[in-house]
Amino acid sequence: MKKMLRVDVSKGSVKMESMPAEYERLGGRGLSSTLLINEVDPMCEPLGPFNKLIIAPGILGGTMAPCCQRISVGGKSPLTGGIKEANSGGISAQKLGRLGIGAVVLEGRDPKALKVLYINKDGAKLVDAPELKGAGNYEISKILREKYGEHIGIASVGPVGENLQFSATVAFIDQDGVPARHAARGGLGSVMASRGVKAVVIDDAEVPKVVKAKDQESFRQTVKEFVAVIKARPRVKNRLPIYGTPGLVAFASEVNSFPTRNFSTGTFERVEKICGERLVELIDERGGQRGHSCYQGCIIGCSNVFNDKEGRHKTSSFEYETLCLLGSNLDIDDVDAIAEMDRMCDDMGIDTIELGGAMGVAMEAGVLKFGDVDGAIDAVRQTAEGTVLGRLLASGPAIVGKVLGIYRVAAIKGQGFPAWDPRTAWATGTTFMTTPMGADHTAGRLQGILEFDKMEPGFCGKLSSTMQAQVCTQDSVGLCQFSDGTPESVMYLARLLSAYFDEPWEPEDIVSLGQKIFRTEQKFNELAGLGKQFDRLPEFMLHEPLPPTNSLFGVDPAEIDSYFKDLKDV
Amino acid sequence: MKKMLRVDVSKGSVKMESMPAEYERLGGRGLSSTLLINEVDPMCEPLGPFNKLIIAPGILGGTMAPCCQRISVGGKSPLTGGIKEANSGGISAQKLGRLGIGAVVLEGRDPKALKVLYINKDGAKLVDAPELKGAGNYEISKILREKYGEHIGIASVGPVGENLQFSATVAFIDQDGVPARHAARGGLGSVMASRGVKAVVIDDAEVPKVVKAKDQESFRQTVKEFVAVIKARPRVKNRLPIYGTPGLVAFASEVNSFPTRNFSTGTFERVEKICGERLVELIDERGGQRGHSCYQGCIIGCSNVFNDKEGRHKTSSFEYETLCLLGSNLDIDDVDAIAEMDRMCDDMGIDTIELGGAMGVAMEAGVLKFGDVDGAIDAVRQTAEGTVLGRLLASGPAIVGKVLGIYRVAAIKGQGFPAWDPRTAWATGTTFMTTPMGADHTAGRLQGILEFDKMEPGFCGKLSSTMQAQVCTQDSVGLCQFSDGTPESVMYLARLLSAYFDEPWEPEDIVSLGQKIFRTEQKFNELAGLGKQFDRLPEFMLHEPLPPTNSLFGVDPAEIDSYFKDLKDV
Repeated sequence: MKKMLRVDVSKGSVKMESMPAEYERLGGRGLSSTLLINEVDPMCEPLGPFNKLIIAPGILGGTMAPCCQRISVGGKSPLTGGIKEANSGGISAQKLGRLGIGAVVLEGRDPKALKVLYINKDGAKLVDAPELKGAGNYEISKILREKYGEHIGIASVGPVGENLQFSATVAFIDQDGVPARHAARGGLGSVMASRGVKAVVIDDAEVPKVVKAKDQESFRQTVKEFVAVIKARPRVKNRLPIYGTPGLVAFASEVNSFPTRNFSTGTFERVEKICGERLVELIDERGGQRGHSCYQGCIIGCSNVFNDKEGRHKTSSFEYETLCLLGSNLDIDDVDAIAEMDRMCDDMGIDTIELGGAMGVAMEAGVLKFGDVDGAIDAVRQTAEGTVLGRLLASGPAIVGKVLGIYRVAAIKGQGFPAWDPRTAWATGTTFMTTPMGADHTAGRLQGILEFDKMEPGFCGKLSSTMQAQVCTQDSVGLCQFSDGTPESVMYLARLLSAYFDEPWEPEDIVSLGQKIFRTEQKFNELAGLGKQFDRLPEFMLHEPLPPTNSLFGVDPAEIDSYFKDLKDV
Repeated sequence: MKKMLRVDVSKGSVKMESMPAEYERLGGRGLSSTLLINEVDPMCEPLGPFNKLIIAPGILGGTMAPCCQRISVGGKSPLTGGIKEANSGGISAQKLGRLGIGAVVLEGRDPKALKVLYINKDGAKLVDAPELKGAGNYEISKILREKYGEHIGIASVGPVGENLQFSATVAFIDQDGVPARHAARGGLGSVMASRGVKAVVIDDAEVPKVVKAKDQESFRQTVKEFVAVIKARPRVKNRLPIYGTPGLVAFASEVNSFPTRNFSTGTFERVEKICGERLVELIDERGGQRGHSCYQGCIIGCSNVFNDKEGRHKTSSFEYETLCLLGSNLDIDDVDAIAEMDRMCDDMGIDTIELGGAMGVAMEAGVLKFGDVDGAIDAVRQTAEGTVLGRLLASGPAIVGKVLGIYRVAAIKGQGFPAWDPRTAWATGTTFMTTPMGADHTAGRLQGILEFDKMEPGFCGKLSSTMQAQVCTQDSVGLCQFSDGTPESVMYLARLLSAYFDEPWEPEDIVSLGQKIFRTEQKFNELAGLGKQFDRLPEFMLHEPLPPTNSLFGVDPAEIDSYFKDLKDV
């Protein structure tokens, strides 16, 4: 039986409890969201004393199941005012799984405490860490790995989280100890910081390396088959280990869905300077790494290590979204400058999507300048320094737009848009509108589906609602989205869970699990006051055609509502 | 029959229309709110092309009815995201009434145009006014009165409105030509500016001075009786013409409901330095004026003219709310400094309540300092200069709290609290929660009713809902709230409207008119996504006792909801 760790810094309490029966078959997002609706008042102030911050590996964290080491961070989001699950790679899910811990729940409010929560085979304790005050995630990783050993996992908040900013991340180190992985969206870093925890150290020394299923023989057989299926997928064979997510840059710009200059066009004229192909050239020239894995044992390796011109490490996990939001969206084509900003964001613990969106709006307002590399880097620096401009930018594009009087702001439920423009990517736009998370690209991956959907009425609503429920399941099992995407995955997940729990799981159970989690999250948002009026695209996107193809979003909101109403009845 | 003036700067169109039949018996707030729900999508972006800005005198504007020259400004509020009516004194309702204009409706979006809309007996026209770009309301008044004569009325936006800030006002000049009167709340100045209008000039030359009722004889008789009743009221006899609204300062502090240092206590230790009695001493010493009227013919004269130490005019209409929010709330006891800030706010066109609340939060965050007079004055200056700090402060306390990570923010529906703390003023707190306007002291005046209400369950909800509907009627008739407050007013209003329209109006009609307007506004907010979750006090106020009496708000939200649910059924 798994355990749940409850920590309240304001009371100084650390309790390791048995996982309650109602949560035994949940993990990751499903566990986090269910805990939140059961224990957190949806009306509470996200940074006040009544919110909780939950860190939960997926159900299969620590097992041999392929690509199942994602970790969920949950809480009420200060950015959206709704429920939030932000998902990350790294080595921490594996280690929490090995320790038998299904969830770490941080409670109470004590924003000045900033303790280290140390977890190992013997339990957990709070440790004073005054030396970490104001520290960036790189420094935190260095100090804590020196102190506790290089085998530990770390979840931490940088200075932007300490400043209680709405775009603060929870950073997770990868297998190199680099804080390149983030539960980035929705400002959960500020929720963690306001609970009084600066870092969580997960020390899995002296525990078995593999978590066993109840029916380990059947589990092993399913793993073997699923590994082969994943490896055979074209994108896993041909794209992800070579180009990673930046492999989408050229495609997105070509189909006019690549946000450029604060979402004023979908095609970046100098895309060849920041696309995946260019990145790979530079990585190879400079002795970086492609096909990099965020944890040991990954069979995809979508990540990368990007070095500077002198061949020194600059950043890891340099992603598509960052290349767009801190690149084309700011009219910046200098990939080294974008890499510098990516590293700074990793270090300070700030969401590159939210910050890039905010800077784009500030550029439209004339407070920053499009294409001004030095100005952009300086602005990123200010987010950690806590200047008024820095603090404003670290609040995300929705707030920047309000303060600077900008009408054209790409945000839903207060959360800035990822790097897809709904005016050409209708199905993805439908997900942005309807996910309880605010505009979120991980809530229902449909980026290949473009406006030709208009040929089939109802297509976008149906597809998005199905995908969103599917993602809820993946995020609960801990399954990386890059491994998935075909109907047979549902069957493999059913077989894996059947073997893991040694009880019958049918494909329908996998589907209904996701639907139930989605419904739980919708319910939380309804209780928090986020009704269907919050499930809408920004007004300007409905009326301003997107050059150069002059596309407009063409899905009827009423039609979308009808699909999500159905899902509410689950 | 009255007329409606529709102006769209983006199309260059100016149309004088007959008032549609459905609006003939409406005026002021009732007309504005009904127009908004009929013509404006509640989901629209407040500063986008689909919002409208409505300026409407009350039904009895321009008549001889006592204290009936209030003017309403309406639109969807950028600050609250809901419907907004902000109400002002001054001379403009009278002049619009004389011109037979029931509403000026500004449509379309053209934030760079900033035209003057000139209205006189012959019609209306748009005039280029490049000389007014960036001008403050004092300068606007000077320039326009020089150009068009000293008899005109003016509604204008200062630089804070031009910057499209959420606390920008629509300023109205008083009978001295001083822009001391404001439709201050909810950022309607930015809605006006984004419609492309910098100022509206109302020239009533060569029109009859008094608007006649259909049954003028009966109207005249009722006016005579009502005047006597108003003049006999104790506060009209003893308090308002001497002390004006600042006469409440000492009382509010004594009963521990006077927000001090960002709402951290309800009693200001140095209240004697900023109270009404002190103000009157200074006014008399320096040759200022008390018992001042905002328009010619007022029988109360609640206003004042406050001079500096050299006897030169500093500010007019120096009010209770300003003395608190820019005084005690900032730990400032220097009444001349507060007067200086009041003048600056009048000039720049920024709501003193919203700005004072924002500065209090910035002081709690350490960005400004409590009690720092020079720092405070400099910060006020920055709101017009458009520095990042100035722009942030001009966005109101709710946004300042989000950006600076402050938990203790006194705001409802995004609008900052007026100068009453609900932890002692329960009935007023109930109004703050439930008015569709966001925390608003003019939505249901109950400041004399303190926490002893707890003796009677249901008292606050019942009283507040009744008062709010009553205020809706007053704001539609154009009746100043200071004239009112007794049951017999309803009877006099029924008699006045009976004579004005020459048709039977019963007291029940007066009550149901207000209820219907309130319901219309609730409906708009529901459609805009502001459900009952937005009718709540800030979390910290529910848990933090208010020193020195350690009061807590004690009205059950469910009980409050039940009263406002009843009103929804009207």
